[in-house]
Amino acid sequence: MGKVICAGLGPGDPELMSVKSWRALQGAKHIAYFRKAGRKGQARAIVDDLLPEGVIEHAMEYPVTTEIHFSDPEYNRILSAFYDQWADTLAEIAQSEDVVVPCEGDPFLYGSFMHLYTRLQGRAEVEVIPGITGMSGCWTATGQPITWGDDVLTVAMATLPEDELTRRIADTDALVVMKIGRNLPKLRRALEAAGKFDAAWLVERGTMPKQTVQKLADVEGEVPYFSIVLVHGQGRRP
Amino acid sequence: MGKVICAGLGPGDPELMSVKSWRALQGAKHIAYFRKAGRKGQARAIVDDLLPEGVIEHAMEYPVTTEIHFSDPEYNRILSAFYDQWADTLAEIAQSEDVVVPCEGDPFLYGSFMHLYTRLQGRAEVEVIPGITGMSGCWTATGQPITWGDDVLTVAMATLPEDELTRRIADTDALVVMKIGRNLPKLRRALEAAGKFDAAWLVERGTMPKQTVQKLADVEGEVPYFSIVLVHGQGRRP
Repeated sequence: MGKVICAGLGPGDPELMSVKSWRALQGAKHIAYFRKAGRKGQARAIVDDLLPEGVIEHAMEYPVTTEIHFSDPEYNRILSAFYDQWADTLAEIAQSEDVVVPCEGDPFLYGSFMHLYTRLQGRAEVEVIPGITGMSGCWTATGQPITWGDDVLTVAMATLPEDELTRRIADTDALVVMKIGRNLPKLRRALEAAGKFDAAWLVERGTMPKQTVQKLADVEGEVPYFSIVLVHGQGRRP
Repeated sequence: MGKVICAGLGPGDPELMSVKSWRALQGAKHIAYFRKAGRKGQARAIVDDLLPEGVIEHAMEYPVTTEIHFSDPEYNRILSAFYDQWADTLAEIAQSEDVVVPCEGDPFLYGSFMHLYTRLQGRAEVEVIPGITGMSGCWTATGQPITWGDDVLTVAMATLPEDELTRRIADTDALVVMKIGRNLPKLRRALEAAGKFDAAWLVERGTMPKQTVQKLADVEGEVPYFSIVLVHGQGRRP
């Protein structure tokens, strides 16, 4: 019997992967990774230099990403069938051999693997190796601690309604906002309304070669979905 | 010229350290680590099997931990002098050689190193290597994802006033509470009042040999300051 090993990859720099994930990948016979159709895939790119010769690769291509809104029942149906099918395939491989699933960031924090994880329960042994979160990579890139003393940290998605975003931004010490992309204009308004626009940073490709770290006020044009907005806490310190 | 390298260690299992921190420690000439007086120190214990022969060790012993309350000005004065002194020492070493400071978790998330970091600005080159957070180690240990879809995650300290804790616990999807210890009775009441007591988990020594994972309702007696309480989000999933 093999098992399914989800290897958290961390924020992007391969050296920020855990030793445990690194070793799992170096010893892999099978790897399976998510990617957008037609792309190489970010997870696959991170492990490029690690994979042993002869590894068998399984590209799990999302049938849909942002073409259909997630509130559309069709979105749910299509994605659900996709995860069902790949859970079947991974369970089948794990009957005889290990399969490693490299996943960006920390798998249990807003990761895609958990949709396979729940479907694999009782069908295969599953091990999850945590990773450095994308947000840790981003706040480290700003060169400032995100939280001090008793600061409250709120992690929210920019997909939330504007009034809820505004309320939550106003009511926290430290802030991380993910899933930016086309939600940026709404997020800007929410930060303005909460009086925190001037304190906000935008980090793109944190810890990766083309990393950018800017005050949000200096950002022009569009930004990727996977960029992160941060407001640092200012709590108690000796 | 050398530099000060803060090496995030992750949640406790040495294999969950990043490859970058691992290499920094294996090549260290000097290491400096925080510990409570009279103890070996958790950071020091995690790196036990990694350090090269002949490494020079600097134990930075807290002059005070919980003997004086943090609201007492004396607490602030004593700790501030302690950080000043060690910033001087590390800056002095970094004049000629690298010094590695191994720190549990992720250094910029409620870490002690940041008090040295701010004091070292302009005096030494400082590099911070992020780490897997203690909370990631703990939610991975529960075997359940902490956040799904658009869940809001709140990270709060159990040192907050009870009414504020209650309000924040009621107003979030996913929850992490740190700094438990003697604040446990207050936290229990806050979780009860917010209707989330039965959904709460307590993890002690996450990813370490004596790890325990329990429903909070099943916990009897006292718990360590560094244990973590979690409530998993239940958001949207295909």
